[in-house]
Amino acid sequence: MSAKIRVTVWGEYVHEKKHAAVAKIYPNGMHETIAEGLRESPDFEVRTATLDQPEHGLTDKVLDQTDVLTWWGHCAHGDVNDKIVDRVQTRVLQGMGLIVLHSGHYAKIFKRLLGTTCSLTWREAGEKERLWVCNPGHPITQGIDRYFEIPQEEMYGEPFAIPAPDETLFVSWFQGGEVFRSGCTWKRGNGKIFYFRPGHETYPTYHQKEVRRVIQNGARWASPEGSRWIDTCPNVPVEKAPEKIVVRGETLHVPGEAGFR
Amino acid sequence: MSAKIRVTVWGEYVHEKKHAAVAKIYPNGMHETIAEGLRESPDFEVRTATLDQPEHGLTDKVLDQTDVLTWWGHCAHGDVNDKIVDRVQTRVLQGMGLIVLHSGHYAKIFKRLLGTTCSLTWREAGEKERLWVCNPGHPITQGIDRYFEIPQEEMYGEPFAIPAPDETLFVSWFQGGEVFRSGCTWKRGNGKIFYFRPGHETYPTYHQKEVRRVIQNGARWASPEGSRWIDTCPNVPVEKAPEKIVVRGETLHVPGEAGFR
Amino acid sequence: MSAKIRVTVWGEYVHEKKHAAVAKIYPNGMHETIAEGLRESPDFEVRTATLDQPEHGLTDKVLDQTDVLTWWGHCAHGDVNDKIVDRVQTRVLQGMGLIVLHSGHYAKIFKRLLGTTCSLTWREAGEKERLWVCNPGHPITQGIDRYFEIPQEEMYGEPFAIPAPDETLFVSWFQGGEVFRSGCTWKRGNGKIFYFRPGHETYPTYHQKEVRRVIQNGARWASPEGSRWIDTCPNVPVEKAPEKIVVRGETLHVPGEAGFR
Amino acid sequence: MSAKIRVTVWGEYVHEKKHAAVAKIYPNGMHETIAEGLRESPDFEVRTATLDQPEHGLTDKVLDQTDVLTWWGHCAHGDVNDKIVDRVQTRVLQGMGLIVLHSGHYAKIFKRLLGTTCSLTWREAGEKERLWVCNPGHPITQGIDRYFEIPQEEMYGEPFAIPAPDETLFVSWFQGGEVFRSGCTWKRGNGKIFYFRPGHETYPTYHQKEVRRVIQNGARWASPEGSRWIDTCPNVPVEKAPEKIVVRGETLHVPGEAGFR
Repeated sequence: MSAKIRVTVWGEYVHEKKHAAVAKIYPNGMHETIAEGLRESPDFEVRTATLDQPEHGLTDKVLDQTDVLTWWGHCAHGDVNDKIVDRVQTRVLQGMGLIVLHSGHYAKIFKRLLGTTCSLTWREAGEKERLWVCNPGHPITQGIDRYFEIPQEEMYGEPFAIPAPDETLFVSWFQGGEVFRSGCTWKRGNGKIFYFRPGHETYPTYHQKEVRRVIQNGARWASPEGSRWIDTCPNVPVEKAPEKIVVRGETLHVPGEAGFR
Repeated sequence: MSAKIRVTVWGEYVHEKKHAAVAKIYPNGMHETIAEGLRESPDFEVRTATLDQPEHGLTDKVLDQTDVLTWWGHCAHGDVNDKIVDRVQTRVLQGMGLIVLHSGHYAKIFKRLLGTTCSLTWREAGEKERLWVCNPGHPITQGIDRYFEIPQEEMYGEPFAIPAPDETLFVSWFQGGEVFRSGCTWKRGNGKIFYFRPGHETYPTYHQKEVRRVIQNGARWASPEGSRWIDTCPNVPVEKAPEKIVVRGETLHVPGEAGFR
Repeated sequence: MSAKIRVTVWGEYVHEKKHAAVAKIYPNGMHETIAEGLRESPDFEVRTATLDQPEHGLTDKVLDQTDVLTWWGHCAHGDVNDKIVDRVQTRVLQGMGLIVLHSGHYAKIFKRLLGTTCSLTWREAGEKERLWVCNPGHPITQGIDRYFEIPQEEMYGEPFAIPAPDETLFVSWFQGGEVFRSGCTWKRGNGKIFYFRPGHETYPTYHQKEVRRVIQNGARWASPEGSRWIDTCPNVPVEKAPEKIVVRGETLHVPGEAGFR
Repeated sequence: MSAKIRVTVWGEYVHEKKHAAVAKIYPNGMHETIAEGLRESPDFEVRTATLDQPEHGLTDKVLDQTDVLTWWGHCAHGDVNDKIVDRVQTRVLQGMGLIVLHSGHYAKIFKRLLGTTCSLTWREAGEKERLWVCNPGHPITQGIDRYFEIPQEEMYGEPFAIPAPDETLFVSWFQGGEVFRSGCTWKRGNGKIFYFRPGHETYPTYHQKEVRRVIQNGARWASPEGSRWIDTCPNVPVEKAPEKIVVRGETLHVPGEAGFR
């Protein structure tokens, strides 16, 4: 890991090119605004990557230089190449942090790592969202008071079909009457995963100070610790067993052969 | 749920047709021996299904009548159709129990639900395995003393690359010096998942009394409770919000439209 | 376990004798109203116990006949004898279910089992509470629609200082703008624990149909499975080790002696 | 937090003064040897504290200057003052790291934070222990190969009566045939807790390189992140509710009064 935390901000970058309502708020793409928020802190070295780039901008070389990946996608989840999803999953299991934003709840990489449908209920009415802090001492909630409000947001409501989070850090209150677990963490392999709800494409959410602060906190929290574990499912030859044993019974494997997958 | 717990025993059924060493121990296939063990208890109504059947024997109709599915696969994990994996995953999330056996740690359905590599270290030497009970009061360990032994087994060793289990029920001691978390449970959606390590194809493990007892216990424990949740990610129209709100701001969706996936 | 689930409803029974505002709503004590709600189902055999009884009504004999204990306390948490707390804790670890209600978040037994402060924020304004279901398929949420409302309740707000729940089943929306994880489950030893938020003493909450239904569901879910594990920390004499070993090195213990606690 | 991680090594320091067999190996007390192991790394500023000191050496002032506390106790668990246990618990919940060693599984502070009996089986025979790494990428296992061995140790065996760990990092294989979850982590409040099994008083375990390395790693991992959350259970006055509400119904509290505990 370099002295700075190297963050790659991935954006689907489709709405911004098609819809004036989005382009008006995010003229350079939502990913550039999210990146701008991270660049406000000296702790990060930030690059962006988008769906339309070769390998969606997530080449092995880029991932070699990525400590934390943030993910925003919505209408083009299905266009993300499964081989790139495999690659990102491998990196997360080896320790790369992953921050999944808003509609990324349906991204292939999020569903792949969590194993559930990750569905929810939703409504687009530009209503007020109030996010409550569930653990004021956690690194991800630093700099946030007891709660903060987003004036206009899409509603996401329970049930949120996720495996039980390691920690629930934010729960949202919506003006229309719903609630949602808006900040959740999990560990998979050695990778830390943070889901953060806000960020509908037709509202200026990623320009808001508190949202930027939480994403910065999340990137610090999710940065790798320990070491990469290259996971190989090795055969242990009989003569290398810690205790001396003699082979008994039959086998279908030739000595030294790789296992079935 | 019927009065009896309806178990479908899925077997890859490849080794048994190719290798005399396996056929000798499991003349009707490993799945039939596993099924025989379950049929020793009056609590179950047991059927089997195999890879070579249409839809691998896991049609919607069969799954409609399945409370718990057991899974043994090894050399042909890659031949399992992804559409069937999707279907089984959906059922597990809706509440069907799943018992994954031995080399099923690398089955698509297991990796799909857990999100990690599920790798381990291994050695085929027919060594002694001693399985220790970590929770003597748990339904899955009933009828088992402080430990039981399997005279000849394949070794599986740590690290076992799984998400932290909800409970670890068995830990194995191997003669050659390794250890392994051999009985682990997770909940995904409403489905209970039990991984149970023993069962190498060249040893008579599924004929052993204690192994059969644990699988019976597992099938009782994993049987559905509550109800099936058909998960649809519904839009909540503005006029159905619990609290009265008025739409503000722009949207890219037409009212009533389904969300992006 | 008998054919019926044997529930003991524990009530502090202090407010009801002191405050007309409470006595008016719960003339026979809150515990009797909670018990009445459970008796609406044929699944339960229900008794009550209160602080003012010898051993707070929780004698060994009573606990021998208790599958699930429900707990409501508020102003007299400090008067609960630590020896009785020890006894209830032992039973929970051995498999007795425990349902902790409302202000029981500060009961000694709850803090003892969870190990954290269990604090929260609060306001008494008789405001509306709307409880959202986070898992519609779970046994505890059966018979409840997407949400239900309580017309007047005390507000409890995040942060709720608990260890991460095994599952979060309800999240509350409060009229005054707060949220709370109102239905949470944990397993400690072999005991299932369910915390359910509603039930302030000055409102008729335990007369409400949906609240009664959730408590019934909770008592079914929390009833023991498996067997009681009498936990003794046994010494394993050298001659009873599964593998033959010879003693090496020194010891401070006399053979057969009990360990230090 | 200072630039260095401030570790306080707590030792019961009773055996060393009474038993020549222990004094021979740990002439200045086990705590001094544990402290010596930590001082091998420049990352730490280390002090020690013992049972026989005023307030067991754990005054508010000492704890103010402690990022991580390590705990070794055995024959005098019962002599630890409950008020000091309360104080340490509060600090852990506020973010101080805690490393519990060996027979500390029965320390009041460990049982207090975990809520279970923390019992196990045991045998003193000076047998070989082999500790396997369950997650080679975790900060706590850095510098350790696939496993390491301790030539002579007390056996601790399953069942280990703990709540499910957040992660299991080491599992031990014992020569006599048992297994044990020897390295486990939990988070309670904002405090990280690491239990590490080795360290019987009659063997030179804390002089061993790998054991020292794991304790160093553990102290780095457990050091506080985020901020201290001073947990007060505040009342939120009606006029400070985020949404405007009017009080309805009765209350037993006088406005501004503290809640019951």
